[in-house]
Amino acid sequence: MVSLKTAAVAGAVADEAGAATGPSPDELRLLDAYWRASNYLSVGQIYLLDNPLLREPLKREHIKPRLLGHWGTSPGLNMLYVHLNRVIKRDDLNMIYVIGPGHGGPSLVAHAYLEGTYSEFYPNISQDAEGMQRLFKQFSFPGGIPSHVAPETPGSIHEGGELGYALSHAYGAAFDNPDLIVACVVGDGEAETGPLATGWHGNKFLNPARDGCVLPILHLNGYKIANPCYLARIPRDELQKYLEGMGYKPYFVEGHEPEEVHRELAEALDTIVAEIKDIWAEARQNGNLKRPAWPMIVFRTPKGWTCPAEIDGKKCEDYWRSHQVPMGDMDKPEHIHILEQWMKSYRPEELFDENGRLRPELAALAPTGRRRMSDNPHANGGVLLRDLKMPDFRDYGVEVPSPGATTAESARVMGKFLRDVMKENLGDKNFRLFSPDENNSNRWQDVLEVTNRCYMAEIYPEDDHLSPDGRIMEVLSEHQCQGWLEGYLLTGRHGFFSCYEAFIHIIDSMFNQHAKWLKVCNEIHWRRPIASLNYFLSSHVWRQDHNGFSHQDPGFIDHVVNKKAEVVRVYLPPDANTLLSVTDHCLRSRNYVNVVVAGKQPAPQWLTMSEAVRHCAMGLGIWEWASSDRGSEPDVVMACCGDVPTLETLAAVQLLREHLPDLKVRVINVVNLMKLQPASEHPHGLSDRDFDALFTRDKPIIFAFHGYPWLIHRLTYRRTNHKNLHVRGYKEEGTTTTPFDMVVLNDLDRFHLVGDVIDRLPQLGARAAYFKQAIQAKLIEHRQYIEEHGDDMPSISGWKWGVRGTDAGKGATSTEGDNA
Amino acid sequence: MVSLKTAAVAGAVADEAGAATGPSPDELRLLDAYWRASNYLSVGQIYLLDNPLLREPLKREHIKPRLLGHWGTSPGLNMLYVHLNRVIKRDDLNMIYVIGPGHGGPSLVAHAYLEGTYSEFYPNISQDAEGMQRLFKQFSFPGGIPSHVAPETPGSIHEGGELGYALSHAYGAAFDNPDLIVACVVGDGEAETGPLATGWHGNKFLNPARDGCVLPILHLNGYKIANPCYLARIPRDELQKYLEGMGYKPYFVEGHEPEEVHRELAEALDTIVAEIKDIWAEARQNGNLKRPAWPMIVFRTPKGWTCPAEIDGKKCEDYWRSHQVPMGDMDKPEHIHILEQWMKSYRPEELFDENGRLRPELAALAPTGRRRMSDNPHANGGVLLRDLKMPDFRDYGVEVPSPGATTAESARVMGKFLRDVMKENLGDKNFRLFSPDENNSNRWQDVLEVTNRCYMAEIYPEDDHLSPDGRIMEVLSEHQCQGWLEGYLLTGRHGFFSCYEAFIHIIDSMFNQHAKWLKVCNEIHWRRPIASLNYFLSSHVWRQDHNGFSHQDPGFIDHVVNKKAEVVRVYLPPDANTLLSVTDHCLRSRNYVNVVVAGKQPAPQWLTMSEAVRHCAMGLGIWEWASSDRGSEPDVVMACCGDVPTLETLAAVQLLREHLPDLKVRVINVVNLMKLQPASEHPHGLSDRDFDALFTRDKPIIFAFHGYPWLIHRLTYRRTNHKNLHVRGYKEEGTTTTPFDMVVLNDLDRFHLVGDVIDRLPQLGARAAYFKQAIQAKLIEHRQYIEEHGDDMPSISGWKWGVRGTDAGKGATSTEGDNA
Ligand SMILES: Cc1ncc(C[n+]2csc(CCOP(=O)(O)OP(=O)(O)O)c2C)c(N)n1
Ligand SMILES: Cc1ncc(C[n+]2csc(CCOP(=O)(O)OP(=O)(O)O)c2C)c(N)n1
Ligand SMILES: [Mg+2]
Ligand SMILES: [Mg+2]
Repeated sequence: MVSLKTAAVAGAVADEAGAATGPSPDELRLLDAYWRASNYLSVGQIYLLDNPLLREPLKREHIKPRLLGHWGTSPGLNMLYVHLNRVIKRDDLNMIYVIGPGHGGPSLVAHAYLEGTYSEFYPNISQDAEGMQRLFKQFSFPGGIPSHVAPETPGSIHEGGELGYALSHAYGAAFDNPDLIVACVVGDGEAETGPLATGWHGNKFLNPARDGCVLPILHLNGYKIANPCYLARIPRDELQKYLEGMGYKPYFVEGHEPEEVHRELAEALDTIVAEIKDIWAEARQNGNLKRPAWPMIVFRTPKGWTCPAEIDGKKCEDYWRSHQVPMGDMDKPEHIHILEQWMKSYRPEELFDENGRLRPELAALAPTGRRRMSDNPHANGGVLLRDLKMPDFRDYGVEVPSPGATTAESARVMGKFLRDVMKENLGDKNFRLFSPDENNSNRWQDVLEVTNRCYMAEIYPEDDHLSPDGRIMEVLSEHQCQGWLEGYLLTGRHGFFSCYEAFIHIIDSMFNQHAKWLKVCNEIHWRRPIASLNYFLSSHVWRQDHNGFSHQDPGFIDHVVNKKAEVVRVYLPPDANTLLSVTDHCLRSRNYVNVVVAGKQPAPQWLTMSEAVRHCAMGLGIWEWASSDRGSEPDVVMACCGDVPTLETLAAVQLLREHLPDLKVRVINVVNLMKLQPASEHPHGLSDRDFDALFTRDKPIIFAFHGYPWLIHRLTYRRTNHKNLHVRGYKEEGTTTTPFDMVVLNDLDRFHLVGDVIDRLPQLGARAAYFKQAIQAKLIEHRQYIEEHGDDMPSISGWKWGVRGTDAGKGATSTEGDNA
Repeated sequence: MVSLKTAAVAGAVADEAGAATGPSPDELRLLDAYWRASNYLSVGQIYLLDNPLLREPLKREHIKPRLLGHWGTSPGLNMLYVHLNRVIKRDDLNMIYVIGPGHGGPSLVAHAYLEGTYSEFYPNISQDAEGMQRLFKQFSFPGGIPSHVAPETPGSIHEGGELGYALSHAYGAAFDNPDLIVACVVGDGEAETGPLATGWHGNKFLNPARDGCVLPILHLNGYKIANPCYLARIPRDELQKYLEGMGYKPYFVEGHEPEEVHRELAEALDTIVAEIKDIWAEARQNGNLKRPAWPMIVFRTPKGWTCPAEIDGKKCEDYWRSHQVPMGDMDKPEHIHILEQWMKSYRPEELFDENGRLRPELAALAPTGRRRMSDNPHANGGVLLRDLKMPDFRDYGVEVPSPGATTAESARVMGKFLRDVMKENLGDKNFRLFSPDENNSNRWQDVLEVTNRCYMAEIYPEDDHLSPDGRIMEVLSEHQCQGWLEGYLLTGRHGFFSCYEAFIHIIDSMFNQHAKWLKVCNEIHWRRPIASLNYFLSSHVWRQDHNGFSHQDPGFIDHVVNKKAEVVRVYLPPDANTLLSVTDHCLRSRNYVNVVVAGKQPAPQWLTMSEAVRHCAMGLGIWEWASSDRGSEPDVVMACCGDVPTLETLAAVQLLREHLPDLKVRVINVVNLMKLQPASEHPHGLSDRDFDALFTRDKPIIFAFHGYPWLIHRLTYRRTNHKNLHVRGYKEEGTTTTPFDMVVLNDLDRFHLVGDVIDRLPQLGARAAYFKQAIQAKLIEHRQYIEEHGDDMPSISGWKWGVRGTDAGKGATSTEGDNA
């Protein structure tokens, strides 16, 4: 078959104490046979339509017309799988397998099949020749399964299509799973990505007493799609320093000769498993919580290992050409011959019995039942998921004797509720909060009363609520927060991610992948629902006080609504009580992505608790106390969505009341953004009849929106009255300025809103001319005032609902204590 | 003033050979005075409205009402600046300063002011007491300047609001600037981000003969917003290994005592500058292109250094509390007193003369003219920008004897053109291509005929076009590609980024920041236009053959169009000749972000070169040869945008021609997406009159779109005929399947389009019933066929414009050679 260079290999293994003596030659032969079986099945999936056991000579019609998939990574993944099985079985370990290069789908499917899990989940793919034929055919085939380690693959929590998140997912899975080992393969190409490069540092947050263990395996197969990987092209000692510098103890397993690599890998794993147990024991029995140097493996083996060394005179094995389908053009008889030889080099007749079933002495190598990595319940987290214990969110409500009478910081109120959610579930160890160094900035500091921030690096006496057993995960990486949370949820737990609104775009693409995962899971009968991925976006576009233009972007929700309606939910609660109700709802929901946007600054409160509950249940509704059209048709509908736009709308309504008392104004507040979509587009969508009743069929609608105005048009373009809809929102105007100036710069302020009303009601006629001039004068006064004083006019910052004119007191706009 | 702990400090400096002997005590005193001046100005900007030199007792009214900005990072940045100035001046170095923690705006503004640049750019901010008062007031003040190192700041190419991109920008700036040193401060918080963590590895791509140098300075001030940073809390030797493992030679400069740190830093910089010169000489004179261990600095000094140790009994200096505004509540007289004492501790009277101007012996420390980091032309790249030499793109055109008669891979044709653009500019060293390991996958491999991939890690004989002087930058990090390209453009050069369409979302947030930067630059008179940021998105949603659902997302353009219309352009050329025309346009344009989406698979070609040029110039237009409404009103408008939708639309039109020959169909193709917007919204927008003429005022429009259908609605909701617009596009249905099945899954295929026409033309009546049934049967046949054969029906894959029915031959759909 293939030429294999003999490599000089030195594993740092022999000197480790306490390890088992390693596998016998017989056992090694069996392991190799199992490896060959999985390699055989991997190649078969990529190439074959039929003749699965090659019992007849291979012909063109046995081969797929379109060859799709990836071979290069698979043999390495396969060898690792076989050896992990060995230690799982021997020591009854609880282990799952996260593979970064998720294009290695053929490998994981092959193992699930060899272990029997695949046939249990998909009886049609039976463990016999017919089933094997179906297994081969279905791969990357219409009506079959995708090429990656997708939700369809038993044992997977990580699709790995978009590279970079393997370690973050692995750490998320290991948190609060004290006996779980997450073996995590990192592609050497993947290792070049940003998220992966910081993913290593998850070890600064993994507590050996409370959490399980991540076993990173850097798969140094040398190549990515069409290039070498730099970690494979730096001197060995540089690589070793890199890994040690990130706090690991690397074991190098390197070679081209399978026999030698089998032996080395087995020995390394023996040592490593013993070491992991020692670390756990040291932490759990001796209470030593010093951050250990966790073991890891550097697995340097050829890409495409065991495929033809050259094809058509071109280097293939141990080269990037083996990445996808090493050989195409299967109309060429020589190629058919090469494929046949290649597959036969695995000696299928030794591996599968006459029925096409894996021979029993090989099948006996795999663990059984839920110890199989393909059937580990942690990889189907929904089966482990338990509801959170929930305090009654109504108990945290803000007293609102009349609309606007109370001031509160919504985010802080939410934090109090989360504190008690945290408290009630401390014992269950199934709830964590995640934030890129913004937990307090986003006003969740009260949670620190019942738990700490998790930290495994050095802690100083002056440190503020840091400890190894904290449940608030703060690291300055949105990627890590997202990846950890995903890993935590996918293994059956709960969480919330708080982030600056603008910077959540950093994980746009990770959100995509998770939303796609959920969408597919909804279609797979055996995938059980998991807790929703919850975002709290604060420090939002309208109140970026210390910062400026770079921190202003409300577009994450635009991004979110492109994903399947079944999995996305967007809430913009206008005050603290609505935020509480929404928070409660998010923590109880399943299989969604919930995006909640709300501010953290002191702001007027509008609804009592019971009004808030009703309002959130409806998702949107008329605010009767603010409206003046009861019993008649409105002249204009003032709609608002988001806390700041709600404030500006109410201020505009008040101006209209004062100056145009006859005008009939209807005020509608939207808390559940998806209500605006047609019912045919989103399960929350309002019926057209209800929409028409609320927004009228023909009256002007002035819509003050938190985000980019086009989003409202995109959601409502099919509605009857869309032609009369006029939306104000963020239009990329901003800088470091006063809160009110931010809305003015974007024409979302009360004065512009009033102007919009006047412009759309010709019936107001000449009457309105004076009023319009007065509001223009106000805007000029505003600009002059802030450029002189650096703060908003007292009539603005001190404005109160129901209090006339400019005699309201000065409000608080200073936020210098923001990070205190 | 403030209490400073004495720290045990050991710089690894003394043993280095060849360094200058270090500064004299006198010089050190002057350096310290300059540092105090910059610290004074930094505090002043955050706090003071007036009384800038504290010549009268400080009162409440001298202090800003809203305190906004960040102090903590500033003293460290200031000290580094002063010392970089020293070596710049001594050795006439060409240096720019990129600071990761861009919230250190006060620091860079202070230095630009001290160097005189600020007053040159903004004469109102003069170098006297009055100017200083204005300098203070304007900071984070309405009508003034933002808090960050924004485009307004002379000398900046990096806003640093969103953390993580400092090193990528720095490397991008250093490429092809052989005498430039980019001093790059990395916050220890920032260092936790993914992009920054991989940013270090830019050194595997920096060629010491051809490129300049990046001098990373890890600012280990211990804290971020409200937490310690883990790099500051791991053992020193672990950190050292980490940095050495990434290929650097770290110099540790650590301490709390300014005097000592001044000395150490000066000595370290002397050594480092000598070392950089040695590395350059070794590469340039001796031709040694081995990757060197570039020097770097670990600068461990207290966060908020020199501010009060405690405020109100709470630790402030050397703690996270100094991050933003260390002290608020300035209505408290004690606080006013503390502020006054703090500012006076810098002894302003020693620093500024009676007019408030920096004393001459201090001013003499700074470099002059263009050597000032605040006035280095590389930081205002437009002044250095030169046009690319451009071959005539028409020479690369595909022959198209009649529409659809030729097949070509658009991306590959583009690659040939880019090859010659590359060739013509090799001498000017101002053009690079960037790709996350997808250059060949996206079909630009012909560029390898004239240049290589850049690589500074080890190169093997079997490697494919790798060399230290390559101009194709391939690294598996979308963040690095983006960051490098931005750095390269911002310093006045040209480039193109090729990426899988789905994964470009990885840099959504970086795009945001760059688009915002450009928007602001357009408003700043002295910022000169730079080359546009060009994206080529291929391997798009419709042809993800080896991959699947995770690789399908056309939503980047949705994200892009939320940014200011002046800076964004989106093109979806339907074939190779239009792609050539668009490419040429992008490479000539300035200050835009151009997004170009096109496929890489063999596909029919529609337009001759001259038709293509005309079509692209118009941006959209009727394809007369495909339409049947000439001289009359159409019954239906079939619009299309994107290569695959164009193909499906034409196939639908052909079916309509065959089966409903009387139907008058108008075919419109859109290449410039922004044409659809109203002229009031985008400079490219079509007037309503033209739009109505093209799309009619009342006929059904069936729009086949490449991306999410809602985007078309969002762009056209104001158009007269919007109510009759029916859009098909990607709706998140997909997997690994055949090319045609992808469009079928999303109802974008020819049969659905025909069905849409029938549904919207009631006048077709009973006639259409048979036809409708026939197309439904076709879809069922399709499903059965692909599930059996794994490939599209020959009548589909072999379809040709103008060739009737199913007798067309089988087309090529196999793509197994994709990575060959
Ligand atoms: C973020 C991202 N960028 C680009 C790609 C395209 N891509 C698919 S596989 C691959 C190479 C992966 O190399 P490596 O991680 O070494 O995996 P291997 O197949 O060698 O095990 C690339 C670049 C991707 N999947 N994800
Ligand atoms: C990507 C990103 N996430 C979060 C923030 C919010 N933020 C602003 S400053 C800061 C801390 C920065 O710490 P460090 O890099 O150490 O800078 P320094 O200590 O010098 O201020 C954070 C988290 C941000 N600016 N960017
Ligand atoms: Mg690899
Ligand atoms: Mg810091």
